[in-house]
Amino acid sequence: MNPYHKPESLLKLNPRGLVPTLEYEGKPLYESTVLCEFLEEAFPNHDPHLMPKDPYERARTRIWTDFVTSRIIPAFHRFLQYQSKGDGDEGLKEKQNEFLGYLKEFTMEMDSEGPYFSGKEFSLIDVIIAPWAVRLWVFDHFKGGLGIPEEGKGGEDEEVWKRWRKWLEAVQERKSIKETTSDKEHYLPIYQRYADDKAQSELAKATREGRGVP
Amino acid sequence: MNPYHKPESLLKLNPRGLVPTLEYEGKPLYESTVLCEFLEEAFPNHDPHLMPKDPYERARTRIWTDFVTSRIIPAFHRFLQYQSKGDGDEGLKEKQNEFLGYLKEFTMEMDSEGPYFSGKEFSLIDVIIAPWAVRLWVFDHFKGGLGIPEEGKGGEDEEVWKRWRKWLEAVQERKSIKETTSDKEHYLPIYQRYADDKAQSELAKATREGRGVP
Repeated sequence: MNPYHKPESLLKLNPRGLVPTLEYEGKPLYESTVLCEFLEEAFPNHDPHLMPKDPYERARTRIWTDFVTSRIIPAFHRFLQYQSKGDGDEGLKEKQNEFLGYLKEFTMEMDSEGPYFSGKEFSLIDVIIAPWAVRLWVFDHFKGGLGIPEEGKGGEDEEVWKRWRKWLEAVQERKSIKETTSDKEHYLPIYQRYADDKAQSELAKATREGRGVP
Repeated sequence: MNPYHKPESLLKLNPRGLVPTLEYEGKPLYESTVLCEFLEEAFPNHDPHLMPKDPYERARTRIWTDFVTSRIIPAFHRFLQYQSKGDGDEGLKEKQNEFLGYLKEFTMEMDSEGPYFSGKEFSLIDVIIAPWAVRLWVFDHFKGGLGIPEEGKGGEDEEVWKRWRKWLEAVQERKSIKETTSDKEHYLPIYQRYADDKAQSELAKATREGRGVP
């Protein structure tokens, strides 16, 4: 469905009209993270498991999943939607540093071997950040560069960015990610509106108003 | 411990220095909601259960717990920390309406009988909003009135506010709430700083900068 022209069937289930929205036994559920945990709990015998078994690791998963939603995604959009105020404006640089700082903080929490955040298994944290991670090219295309150093040029952060690249490659190679990612050409007009800060999605509007993920 | 003078032992566990922070088998955990779910999962035989058993109800609990954190608490602080810009400024009224609107939306999702949000059992949602709910007197004291209509004067919202009062009374009567709430006199100087928008807690600063719960 087209979230810019919300059908009545969606609004009936979720008055805020956000996607994803799920209908389960005639009743509505929404919020991406909530839905992932729901799928895990409603279908406990289904593989792969999105949540670890150990209570401590489950808590850590929730902390860093929340970090993605409350820090990384809003910073991604502040960087992408930033409009330069003319010569000498350092704003874009600030937004870029903020975003890369969060990505680094996130990466330093990854299991050292990986390739996924928690180790050998793809899990909730990977799922939640994946849609943004596979679209980082938008900063190269629209904002003069993402700013993650090339291999061997990361200085004191070399190890961190090496771990990030290992994670990103593993995620991009997954069948589920490939099958739910469109060709770049399809995203260009959509992200052009974000880059010009003219997008009308709930997330774009929330970013414009200085709020977080709606 | 005093969160305004963070001891080294806290910062070692949680560099952001937020409370609550828990040390479990020598490892740190934090974020109130994450901790509640952790306690539930690490001690599954302990009563009362903070989470319902049914996957759909668990998902609903997470949706509305998130609503408390992402909508109600930030709106509480925008209302409390608002500084009038002089005669004719409608800002305070707007913040009040925003806050009461969220409270109403939340209350309409409550189990119709109650007394708690999900029915007869006190659970995660009640725990998360309780600290703010038992301090609503701050708006009467500092901001000219909270604005929830008195009994019988709620007009078309009478039933909603009646349900809210039933919930609040039940929560305030609980031993755990009473034992973790200080006397009003103790809160007055702390909330005076919030009301003057001079508080230095992480939450106060985030509100001032237009952000959500840190």
